[in-house]
Amino acid sequence: MDIENPSRRRLLGGAAAFGAGTLLPALAEAAPPRAAGRRHETEIAIVGAGLAGLAAARKLVAAGRKVLVVEARDRVGGRTLNHAVTAPGAKPGTVVEVGGQWVGPTQDRVLALIRELGLSTFRTYNSGKAVDIRGGERSEYAGRIPPGTMVGSVEAQVAITRLNRMAREVPLDRPWTAPKAAEWDSQTFQSWIDRNLFTDDSKALLQLAVEAVFSAHPRDLSLLGVLFYIHSGGSLEMLLNTEGGAQEARIVGGSQRIALAMAAALGERVLLDSPVMRIEHGEQGVTLLGDGFEVQAQRAIVAIPPTLAGRIRYAPALDGLRDQLTQRLPMGTVVKVQCVYPKPFWREAGLNGQATGDVGPVKLSFDNSPPDGHIGVLMGFIEGSDGRAALRQTREQRRQGTIDSFVRFFGEQARKPLEYIEQNWASEEWTRGCYAGIFPPGVWLDYGEALRAPVGRLHWAGTETAEVWNGYFDGAIRSGERAANEITTPA
Amino acid sequence: MDIENPSRRRLLGGAAAFGAGTLLPALAEAAPPRAAGRRHETEIAIVGAGLAGLAAARKLVAAGRKVLVVEARDRVGGRTLNHAVTAPGAKPGTVVEVGGQWVGPTQDRVLALIRELGLSTFRTYNSGKAVDIRGGERSEYAGRIPPGTMVGSVEAQVAITRLNRMAREVPLDRPWTAPKAAEWDSQTFQSWIDRNLFTDDSKALLQLAVEAVFSAHPRDLSLLGVLFYIHSGGSLEMLLNTEGGAQEARIVGGSQRIALAMAAALGERVLLDSPVMRIEHGEQGVTLLGDGFEVQAQRAIVAIPPTLAGRIRYAPALDGLRDQLTQRLPMGTVVKVQCVYPKPFWREAGLNGQATGDVGPVKLSFDNSPPDGHIGVLMGFIEGSDGRAALRQTREQRRQGTIDSFVRFFGEQARKPLEYIEQNWASEEWTRGCYAGIFPPGVWLDYGEALRAPVGRLHWAGTETAEVWNGYFDGAIRSGERAANEITTPA
Repeated sequence: MDIENPSRRRLLGGAAAFGAGTLLPALAEAAPPRAAGRRHETEIAIVGAGLAGLAAARKLVAAGRKVLVVEARDRVGGRTLNHAVTAPGAKPGTVVEVGGQWVGPTQDRVLALIRELGLSTFRTYNSGKAVDIRGGERSEYAGRIPPGTMVGSVEAQVAITRLNRMAREVPLDRPWTAPKAAEWDSQTFQSWIDRNLFTDDSKALLQLAVEAVFSAHPRDLSLLGVLFYIHSGGSLEMLLNTEGGAQEARIVGGSQRIALAMAAALGERVLLDSPVMRIEHGEQGVTLLGDGFEVQAQRAIVAIPPTLAGRIRYAPALDGLRDQLTQRLPMGTVVKVQCVYPKPFWREAGLNGQATGDVGPVKLSFDNSPPDGHIGVLMGFIEGSDGRAALRQTREQRRQGTIDSFVRFFGEQARKPLEYIEQNWASEEWTRGCYAGIFPPGVWLDYGEALRAPVGRLHWAGTETAEVWNGYFDGAIRSGERAANEITTPA
Repeated sequence: MDIENPSRRRLLGGAAAFGAGTLLPALAEAAPPRAAGRRHETEIAIVGAGLAGLAAARKLVAAGRKVLVVEARDRVGGRTLNHAVTAPGAKPGTVVEVGGQWVGPTQDRVLALIRELGLSTFRTYNSGKAVDIRGGERSEYAGRIPPGTMVGSVEAQVAITRLNRMAREVPLDRPWTAPKAAEWDSQTFQSWIDRNLFTDDSKALLQLAVEAVFSAHPRDLSLLGVLFYIHSGGSLEMLLNTEGGAQEARIVGGSQRIALAMAAALGERVLLDSPVMRIEHGEQGVTLLGDGFEVQAQRAIVAIPPTLAGRIRYAPALDGLRDQLTQRLPMGTVVKVQCVYPKPFWREAGLNGQATGDVGPVKLSFDNSPPDGHIGVLMGFIEGSDGRAALRQTREQRRQGTIDSFVRFFGEQARKPLEYIEQNWASEEWTRGCYAGIFPPGVWLDYGEALRAPVGRLHWAGTETAEVWNGYFDGAIRSGERAANEITTPA
């Protein structure tokens, strides 16, 4: 049973299974603010119980500080969310993640946290060949890069090497000071592809890589933003690879366990069902306000995506640079789809469940079966422009499109899943897109300074503010810890 | 006296000088919503008393409908705002606009409205030569385009002709269906400049033109977005020109008079000091909610910039496509600065007060003196990247930078203004940037459909939604009238 996530399993009612959970949603909706609302006092108020907010809270508590994490939803975990698999044959407690799910080497902070919390990881299934469909032709291949014309593959490799080299010239703390920052932030990544690649194969490969890494189209992204992100994760291969890369390992019991375990340790310090609509701030302190509650604190850490931080009403209003920054960091677009089968049948055919294609809706898939493989789960991403097209479809249309894609990749056995699972992050009121906020052209250059700079007693966290592994769990945790440090160790 | 705009003249207190103005700000801040709040009932609720919202209300009232316009500020007019000149020697009632101010040919709806309201226009001062400073060299010239090398001027003219031709291929109602939409929406306008222009002069000219038209840097903008905008206004010359173009004429008494006169006619149908924080909508109707008030209606028109519309909390939450659209239409960046002098001294020197330069902060100026020229007013724009840099400065730094620019353009007589006036739109809580929302790459293509499409009983207006004269007064009025038509004449 998925007792931690009442929003996905309403049978249990709206009450949260742990944490403060003081307000039933129905009451919270109807209650007037301040009047008859609950008042809380703390030292540091944290907006958002995702990985960033919880990591900030954990670090502050360890430093002896009093904190309260204020979360809009009836659950913790932000963009991590476990889903209980209900298909016949699934063992009780089997989950798949409908949000972020992987960890990999050099993600030191999340890996350390996983150990501290007593959680364990297992390798993403990666044995056998991958599938690629291009121009209607299906092929199976070993290795990391789909086949294609020899020229295209070589060209793609050269481009990746070049991007990695350029990326190292982008300072992680101040990307706008890169020697070629103006040139690189004045163009989309699509423009770079169009000007630097010549074969259709290599262009398609780079486009797919960008979609997989950013859940955005290359035209949505600044070249400087892409280079920053590559540097932030180490290299483009680090971002793309399963073995040795960001998709290397999964968390036993599902990635949301990281947030659930942090929240359990914080206990009453987490307040669910409490969307913060207004933040009053000044020399005397900070007050968070929502329907039916009020939190008074000395400082606040806002640990939600920039585009959502920009929707809170601040009093006094934030300065123009900070506000215009949050107008300019939209979320990526992905519908994550999964099909459950009686067994991981593709493994018997020598396939690892990983597939790439040039026709959607699913252009990228993975084997997302539980550690023991007692059932089979194929997972796919519908991303970028495809994701936006999917937003206009019904669930049934997406289900059918997903199955069609899986059949093309893995054959007729994929035709009849026991269960179809999807998560449409753009429609989630308290996330509004995944994986993360993206940087269109010009934003790093003119607004980068405002990304982390505290505003009086307000501090900013969230994976979008991270220098290292920006956009990933690891960056989220680093950002929370950095914001906590701003408070415990003022410069 | 500037009685209509208490936010600029606090001596008069927070009460609005006309309209419903039912709630004093101090009370509104402290009161709980719903509980003890004022309840209003109407047929069509309109969010925002800018030109779009007021035009919608006016049209609906003319059709016999009951409306209530709900405005966050203590004034009407949105991005139009008169400022009372207080410099010694200024006649009582002398105003300059610190927001939008011009109208021009083919802006038929705003021109008709001006006539209907009994207002009049006068020509922007345009006699004499203009000034250009480039590479440290100051020149005075007649005609429309600053001098420079012959090759650069010719190249710029060729580029403008080409852009006009491309613009005509962009359908105003569905820009994403242009034959080359994908190619044009995949690159920034800066990329187009870099690839198609070769002389520094022509590049600088096109950059300045874009800054002047969009208050944004060319790298912030999609080429498709720029082409749509050119087509929407008619041609790039229409957007740029004083005589015969969008800067041709001004409104006697200041452009805010258009909104003030519409609001006066609406009388009690305008509710000031009432920020809408939440909109509940469904088959039964619509409820707008804010601190201390509630408006029930059958339908609502949201007539504010998309980025602000995205900050309202909707119940049920809006779909992902609409929400992600509003994450992707940031406002331009401009600080509008003005210096008042005892007389328009530049006129005596044969200058028209118009200047362009390649060094900021002010790269573009106009003669903004009152119709009779009894005092002189120089007006300048600090735009795009310069505008963002100005957001980091103090008012005194901006004042000094402005004066330095005006001295470079017009000589030492500009050194000691009687009054310095500035308006920083990005810092205005209920605007957050000017002139308008801009389209980064990829937004028209993937999200254009969601720009105007009603969501149940919610309709969208604002100049950003206009097909014709998008971004201008005329587009705002057309958008309000179009939204009104959606209600009175359902498809």
